[in-house]
Amino acid sequence: MRYEELTIEGRNAVLEAFRSGKTIDRLLIAEGNKEGAVSTILKEAKKQNAVVSFVKKERLDQISTTGKHQGVIAYAAAYEYAEVSDILSAAREKGEEPFLFLLDGIEDPHNLGAIIRTANLAGAHGVIIPKRRAAGLTATVAKVSAGALNYTPVAKVTNLVQTMEELKKEGIWFVCAAMDGDVMYRQNLRGPIGLVIGNEGEGVSRLVRENCDYTASIPMKGNIDSLNASVAAGVLAYEIVRQRSFG
Amino acid sequence: MRYEELTIEGRNAVLEAFRSGKTIDRLLIAEGNKEGAVSTILKEAKKQNAVVSFVKKERLDQISTTGKHQGVIAYAAAYEYAEVSDILSAAREKGEEPFLFLLDGIEDPHNLGAIIRTANLAGAHGVIIPKRRAAGLTATVAKVSAGALNYTPVAKVTNLVQTMEELKKEGIWFVCAAMDGDVMYRQNLRGPIGLVIGNEGEGVSRLVRENCDYTASIPMKGNIDSLNASVAAGVLAYEIVRQRSFG
Repeated sequence: MRYEELTIEGRNAVLEAFRSGKTIDRLLIAEGNKEGAVSTILKEAKKQNAVVSFVKKERLDQISTTGKHQGVIAYAAAYEYAEVSDILSAAREKGEEPFLFLLDGIEDPHNLGAIIRTANLAGAHGVIIPKRRAAGLTATVAKVSAGALNYTPVAKVTNLVQTMEELKKEGIWFVCAAMDGDVMYRQNLRGPIGLVIGNEGEGVSRLVRENCDYTASIPMKGNIDSLNASVAAGVLAYEIVRQRSFG
Repeated sequence: MRYEELTIEGRNAVLEAFRSGKTIDRLLIAEGNKEGAVSTILKEAKKQNAVVSFVKKERLDQISTTGKHQGVIAYAAAYEYAEVSDILSAAREKGEEPFLFLLDGIEDPHNLGAIIRTANLAGAHGVIIPKRRAAGLTATVAKVSAGALNYTPVAKVTNLVQTMEELKKEGIWFVCAAMDGDVMYRQNLRGPIGLVIGNEGEGVSRLVRENCDYTASIPMKGNIDSLNASVAAGVLAYEIVRQRSFG
């Protein structure tokens, strides 16, 4: 397990962190801020013996990396990266065929956070990201994930292609999001599946793509090039949901 | 493409902007400032239904780039708004049944930009947004839309419910994104359709929802509350695409 420094910002994200049982080392609250959601957060903090400090709003502004702390910043022990095997175990425990996301170089933390949020709600068992040239689990990612990071394991691997080869041995098929692929509605997306989403600008890299079992495209009628990466991931993930559960 | 956000500062400049017919998204006036030229500006703002906020002078000082705001700063639209009739014409010209997005209070410009991008690629004929409590067509929205704003008309209306009533007379059905709605895969989403997406935190407002013909939900399996608004819009839009073109 690897650790990254983490501050959690915003009322919902902090509350989610407490409720999911995450260890909060320290909680900073803007002075004079005790109503509503903040009072709920304070109760959770008391229950878990977290250290609470009331500070000036300016102090939070300085610490904040998202710019959206809403008067609440928590220092978590860390977000733990999971192992790929944890993702497979999660599927096994639920008695479901594995469904995972493999992100080939998502760079924007907003996209990464939104994709983890989608993975959680689409019932995926985990997300795999590469070590290099990709956003990691920062405070912004945690905030944008709206709490999903507390539930959905994210594994960070050195070599995506090698990880894919290992997962294929476990019976997982990889479908690669590609604009020139076959229309997703006509593909069979059932069974143990890994959804591969490429980099915002460049798409899926050549080697990863060559290791995919098939490609799937989102039909596009408009005048511009491509969907936002997190929207594309959502659309493809829900086509998988449809075929698996409503087909 | 014009991406610059246009702020107009100073009494004369703002009054000129109104009189020249420029679309003003939002007007900031220093508190306690209602006399003379400012009262004339307020009359113009009322005529054009611009949203007016009274703020502390310090706030204007922060925003001002010229240092000469005289208690008045206006935000002009970075793009021109279309009329609702332009959206219907676009559908007619293509010989297609109308498909439009109606956004009930999307506040985050990143979400608005991503949704306009999705609307373009899903083949929707336009997007309708309300004047109040919603992001307008700022420079950020234009940038995030990845060029879609140049092709997909966006109309801004005073009263969403009234607009819906008018569009129903044109034969358009409204489907409302709602977490407690019927699962989207089981709904009939064919025909002339308006997809209604609610505010990021609060969803679709009561009156708008009551005016929808049916509701549709995205099935959710995870531990958290909801998808990001632009991802939800994408998933629902593509279910409409699937039923219309691949059903």
